[in-house]
Amino acid sequence: MEAKPRLLTLLHSAVIVTMDSQNRVYLNGAIAIEGDKIVSIGESSHLLREFDRQPHEIVDLSGRLLLPGFINTHVHTSQQLARGIADDVDLLTWLHQRIWPYEAAMTDEDSYISTLLCGIELIHSGVTCFAEAGGQHVSAMARAVELLGLRACLAQSTMDCGQGLPGNWATHTTDYCIQSQKELYKKHHNTADGRIRVWLGIRQIMNATDSLLSETRDTAEELKTGIHMHVAEIPYENEFVTHTRKVDHGTVTYLEKIEFLQGNLLAVHSVWVNDTEINSLARTGVKVSHCPAAAMRMLGFAPIKEMLDAGICVSLGTDGAPSNNRMSIVDEMYLASLINKGREAFTKGTTDPTVLPAETVLKMVTTNGAKSVLWENEIGSLEVGKKADLIVVNPSSWSMVPVHDCIASLVYSMRTENIESVMCNGHWIMKNKKILNVNEEEVILLAKKSSAELLKRAGITIPHRMNVI
Amino acid sequence: MEAKPRLLTLLHSAVIVTMDSQNRVYLNGAIAIEGDKIVSIGESSHLLREFDRQPHEIVDLSGRLLLPGFINTHVHTSQQLARGIADDVDLLTWLHQRIWPYEAAMTDEDSYISTLLCGIELIHSGVTCFAEAGGQHVSAMARAVELLGLRACLAQSTMDCGQGLPGNWATHTTDYCIQSQKELYKKHHNTADGRIRVWLGIRQIMNATDSLLSETRDTAEELKTGIHMHVAEIPYENEFVTHTRKVDHGTVTYLEKIEFLQGNLLAVHSVWVNDTEINSLARTGVKVSHCPAAAMRMLGFAPIKEMLDAGICVSLGTDGAPSNNRMSIVDEMYLASLINKGREAFTKGTTDPTVLPAETVLKMVTTNGAKSVLWENEIGSLEVGKKADLIVVNPSSWSMVPVHDCIASLVYSMRTENIESVMCNGHWIMKNKKILNVNEEEVILLAKKSSAELLKRAGITIPHRMNVI
Repeated sequence: MEAKPRLLTLLHSAVIVTMDSQNRVYLNGAIAIEGDKIVSIGESSHLLREFDRQPHEIVDLSGRLLLPGFINTHVHTSQQLARGIADDVDLLTWLHQRIWPYEAAMTDEDSYISTLLCGIELIHSGVTCFAEAGGQHVSAMARAVELLGLRACLAQSTMDCGQGLPGNWATHTTDYCIQSQKELYKKHHNTADGRIRVWLGIRQIMNATDSLLSETRDTAEELKTGIHMHVAEIPYENEFVTHTRKVDHGTVTYLEKIEFLQGNLLAVHSVWVNDTEINSLARTGVKVSHCPAAAMRMLGFAPIKEMLDAGICVSLGTDGAPSNNRMSIVDEMYLASLINKGREAFTKGTTDPTVLPAETVLKMVTTNGAKSVLWENEIGSLEVGKKADLIVVNPSSWSMVPVHDCIASLVYSMRTENIESVMCNGHWIMKNKKILNVNEEEVILLAKKSSAELLKRAGITIPHRMNVI
Repeated sequence: MEAKPRLLTLLHSAVIVTMDSQNRVYLNGAIAIEGDKIVSIGESSHLLREFDRQPHEIVDLSGRLLLPGFINTHVHTSQQLARGIADDVDLLTWLHQRIWPYEAAMTDEDSYISTLLCGIELIHSGVTCFAEAGGQHVSAMARAVELLGLRACLAQSTMDCGQGLPGNWATHTTDYCIQSQKELYKKHHNTADGRIRVWLGIRQIMNATDSLLSETRDTAEELKTGIHMHVAEIPYENEFVTHTRKVDHGTVTYLEKIEFLQGNLLAVHSVWVNDTEINSLARTGVKVSHCPAAAMRMLGFAPIKEMLDAGICVSLGTDGAPSNNRMSIVDEMYLASLINKGREAFTKGTTDPTVLPAETVLKMVTTNGAKSVLWENEIGSLEVGKKADLIVVNPSSWSMVPVHDCIASLVYSMRTENIESVMCNGHWIMKNKKILNVNEEEVILLAKKSSAELLKRAGITIPHRMNVI
């Protein structure tokens, strides 16, 4: 028995930026979607003639731009309720007095609400797929992601030794770390119509034994999944590794030595890497998630130009709300370009406005993002056979007009608010700026309440900055 | 005969961030406005009791924040139609192939439309007062500013020698430069209910003779007005000055030598200044406009922390649309903090998340902005007797919730779109995100048309970045 034909959606009369291998841009393009897949893409006139049966939904996108959904490769969904709890404080206060107590006091329900709030911001900023950095409540995250309609690679934050950890936050055995992740994989991998995948997580090398590293690598190979890990974030991390693990530079050098570097590793930040390490990352196919705002604010200026020149697949991430605090990948695109143009001042003596041009930045949030989350066979560009993950941009606003250079305008002028509609896996999840699967106002109210209670429970107080009456 | 009492407006139940000398924040505050002035400010309960006569307008701002209108101290209003014409190109292409041909081909009407479009973006971003960098059509700008309801210090772009200028753009005599500005002063200074002031403009030292510099200084003293000038933007400028004007460092060193540095000079960018020059700027009371995005993209990282430590009054500017391309002072606040935290990586080895805290950034766009435009006796803070220039922020959105640290949230989380209403000189100019004095959609349409025609006239073509079909 043949399956009945699935619903057909036709979007037409848009400028379509496909991000395909030929970098095609249709000035008057159309795209046809059947079920969760793109079944046709091309000029509007062709597609409007091509289909003999009536589409279920036909949308005239005149004056709009259509792009692949953006991929945010480093998100702490569980930190969304912690936005603003650690601004302008040094790194140790940030971690020991604010973030760790916050995360340790978080319940499953908090994490669910936090992921809902975070997801709403991700959708508004055109994200259809994200990579979770690793939290404590993966099942709660999965529940929220399923409801929101997003695509995600979820991970558990895993630590099996206590370097720097607060006393009240026990680490687990290596075996527990691996087994619990295998269970999460079994429970959630490939659920939500295939939108959820489960990855393995390593918080950072200072909280990982060699056994955890090697077992994580082997388990990832066995499960054919990826590993999400913060790598070379601060100079101290490299010094710590150099000292305790007897290598001559830092984390990347050590990870290469123990054969941890491979194509399924998503290394986050990677700010403090030298030329040899850049070459190691390139040779082994490691992907790098660059989080411009968080890096500039907390860590330093990653050598992104050098990494791209070496052939490394670099994508973009927002990091978590207490590190940024904006969780918009649209802002990160703008920042990525600015920062890396500016950074040249310190290597060349002057900035270089030609570095990291708009087309490269757009690649970072689409095709490079897809490769980074090991999903490039199905997402990252608008092509026949790929999943229908896409966004509609309305550029006719005070913030974008005039548009003389369409691709550049998407990176330099577009604001999050220019994103009008978002489709993931063939379903609209935002239409005309309205989030469809959850009630935004209700989530905001819930978030206000639960974040206040969580801070109270965690004993976190934020001092006043001014003379409050 | 006594003047009849002016209309009274009462805004109450808001969190009011006054930015007064005592940094007072009223958690449940109210403000009373009579005509163009603030007549009372304090706790809501007091103000609601205090007034025996019925206010003309009474607004309950529960859940909202009330702040002084932001002051943007460096704006090229005439470049708004050039947004996106010079992205990712080197500085010489930017200037010679794009910006100069654009400005040279611009008509009075173009400048009017450009200022309207720019003004709409400024108002959306909470700006009530701006300092024009200097354009060719000051009367057209004045017409737009008067209509929009904004407050501004306008200036003519003045050049009396041709270093680097294209052949088709004639410079004027020193005398013409001074006389034309005196006429503009006579015509527009203190017009539009006192909202418009006329300043003197020097484009940059490479296009100014010594006579122009000294006559500008003397004329400014005579007219009791300010001088707006780009200062020490790129290393080449300093080299040029060192070579042609025989000083040992650059523009600031030379300007001090000829006694040009004084309290009415607004020096813009000032990226390439050494410690001695920072001390000169501080000692002479020169104000500095820091434009984070434009500097990072085109010029370099200005030593803002060092300038503030030396006691210099530093404010923030967006620069022009082709240098940025976002014209939102809200984004510049966020960037100012990030950049200057990040910049420490190059002086200290690591970033310093405590540098340029939120309260300092907020000061830069309010009280420091007011001092920079020589208007601090009337604007920059919410105090009795000052002009009613204020903004209403609604923080209850996916982009700001939760608000654990109100002042930090305004700098790190607030988006331009959180600004709900704007009042300038006692009149609402935006209410619930609707611009009141011009039709936003009409201006956008006009801007699209006139910018396309202007580029055509100027012979500017922007190459495609992708494979356009």
